[in-house]
Amino acid sequence: MTLWYEQAVAAPAADWQSKAEAYQLTLTKPPGALGRLEEVATRFSAYQNTLKPELARIEVAVMAADHGIANEGVSAFPQAVTGEMIKNFASGGAAISVLARHMGAHLTVYNLGSVQPLPEINSVVDCRIAAGTANFAVSAAMTDAQLDTALNIGRTAIDGAVERRAQLFIGGEMGIANTSSAACLCARLMGCGVTELTGPGTGLDDDGVGQKARILETAMAFHSEVSEPRDVLRVFGGFEIAALAGAFIAAAQAGIPVLVDGYIASAAALVAVRMNPTITPWLLASHRSAEPAHHRMLEALVLEPLVELSMRLGEGSGAAVTVPLIQSACRLQSEMASFAEAGVSEKL
Amino acid sequence: MTLWYEQAVAAPAADWQSKAEAYQLTLTKPPGALGRLEEVATRFSAYQNTLKPELARIEVAVMAADHGIANEGVSAFPQAVTGEMIKNFASGGAAISVLARHMGAHLTVYNLGSVQPLPEINSVVDCRIAAGTANFAVSAAMTDAQLDTALNIGRTAIDGAVERRAQLFIGGEMGIANTSSAACLCARLMGCGVTELTGPGTGLDDDGVGQKARILETAMAFHSEVSEPRDVLRVFGGFEIAALAGAFIAAAQAGIPVLVDGYIASAAALVAVRMNPTITPWLLASHRSAEPAHHRMLEALVLEPLVELSMRLGEGSGAAVTVPLIQSACRLQSEMASFAEAGVSEKL
Repeated sequence: MTLWYEQAVAAPAADWQSKAEAYQLTLTKPPGALGRLEEVATRFSAYQNTLKPELARIEVAVMAADHGIANEGVSAFPQAVTGEMIKNFASGGAAISVLARHMGAHLTVYNLGSVQPLPEINSVVDCRIAAGTANFAVSAAMTDAQLDTALNIGRTAIDGAVERRAQLFIGGEMGIANTSSAACLCARLMGCGVTELTGPGTGLDDDGVGQKARILETAMAFHSEVSEPRDVLRVFGGFEIAALAGAFIAAAQAGIPVLVDGYIASAAALVAVRMNPTITPWLLASHRSAEPAHHRMLEALVLEPLVELSMRLGEGSGAAVTVPLIQSACRLQSEMASFAEAGVSEKL
Repeated sequence: MTLWYEQAVAAPAADWQSKAEAYQLTLTKPPGALGRLEEVATRFSAYQNTLKPELARIEVAVMAADHGIANEGVSAFPQAVTGEMIKNFASGGAAISVLARHMGAHLTVYNLGSVQPLPEINSVVDCRIAAGTANFAVSAAMTDAQLDTALNIGRTAIDGAVERRAQLFIGGEMGIANTSSAACLCARLMGCGVTELTGPGTGLDDDGVGQKARILETAMAFHSEVSEPRDVLRVFGGFEIAALAGAFIAAAQAGIPVLVDGYIASAAALVAVRMNPTITPWLLASHRSAEPAHHRMLEALVLEPLVELSMRLGEGSGAAVTVPLIQSACRLQSEMASFAEAGVSEKL
């Protein structure tokens, strides 16, 4: 029996992509003069089966959870921040809250496992799997059952996106120490040393990064036998990364393109494509993060980001910031006049 | 007597910049985690004397004119396109029309000198100085009086921006063969060979670029004695570049920051800062164009673009596309909660 996340995804409509590329040549501009925006617009033609794509309905899900590896002192911020930020997402004060509000996106926050239980908060889905993952320096971050639950929470997040007829999905995340999970996950999937992928996260100094790399190297050695994508995800965590991976796969299965945020979201995307390679054409990269190794993950995903703004916040914020570029791309293709319509002469 | 365009511009408020930088550190994110967006927002604090800047009112002026140098065969498109595109700007079918409409910007189109007179068009200011500039391969592109008129048209464009309390000015341009003017202008101002700055423009092939470079080298040699910024502008043109330079200076004098578009607008900005260096802190770069030498101009302006999207259309389109990034930057600084407000723990 094929598991839900292994079910193949149909590719976006190649015929609409080709038609859109031909249509771009008729618009009143030198061929190719809108650069990356033409590429984006024609991809949305393929996603939406139209020459006149639009990007009006955007779904954002922020997945939050704590990490046992935080006990090893790998983060510049205390673990309490995960729960505190969940409240901040919900009350509208976090970066992703501000950005989602202005783009009229539907934002849902999922608490998959803050160390402390939180009181009921409006617009936060309380689906705590545990008080954070286990510390992967000494054991697997998750059990098999916990991993399935986390993947399924991501899948469920897409049900709402489908109901609201979302045209784009952004998965954000929050979890103190989750760059440690992401680095280990990707190092194992990419077959490289974890030190190469280890960076300052929320703001470690050079000594802190060195210490973090040593801790992660030891953890990687401890789990040296793990190599299957699902196992790698189970062993290094976290709940929020698994939920994102599940959401990315489910979004693609529902025909909703995914705008991948930064370092953590890219790690989730890499696990997701290794678990189900057919989702690849449904992923778009938004920005290249300031976390030094993010470009390595994007290379592994064969994704070219739209912008590089030295952002390193997570939450889906880098993806949200680039949404207007995609909207401009769609509007330009949909609304520009053709040479014939405008009576403009073509190239000599 | 100081000429209007030489009048010094007050620097943006350094104290507000500092206050904003300190304020950024109180917001619920790791220090610096919004990268370039923090830099942009704090600059807007300095422009607007507030911790909570906004970018709601945007003024776009598209300056269009023809170039005598087009007769030398330096463009991939026929000269008639300038006038045809003026109509397209006005009727809403051009890229800048689409982008201006969606951002609620006030757009005005100026016809400074199409080769053919145009019928009256609503929202196009007909201020034709001549039927295009003279061919700078054989004479100066403009007379002194024509240059003053063009600079003044740019200055006048800012009167409307002031009336509408614009918070940002974008100067777009259209003019078949204007990359030839821009290349020569910048080569002389930067003291480099024009071949280094010569590219395909609207779409010349390699042979075409080589031929264009040879024509421009000959023209540069013909005008070898010209070196003062104003003279360089007069000799190489064009009317639209002069109008942009005048507008950029007048915007800075009025305290309105300028978002510089691509290759042509950057050439105009370079002339403008050479004519009046005090305007420099009022200029922001939007994008790095696909025109190969644009990065050289940005370096000469000491401006770092926000994005690189391989755009090469002009019209102000690259600047317009980046406006939402500035709006996001302002909104994030203005609306995010502080650590204290949100009850979030700070860095360890």
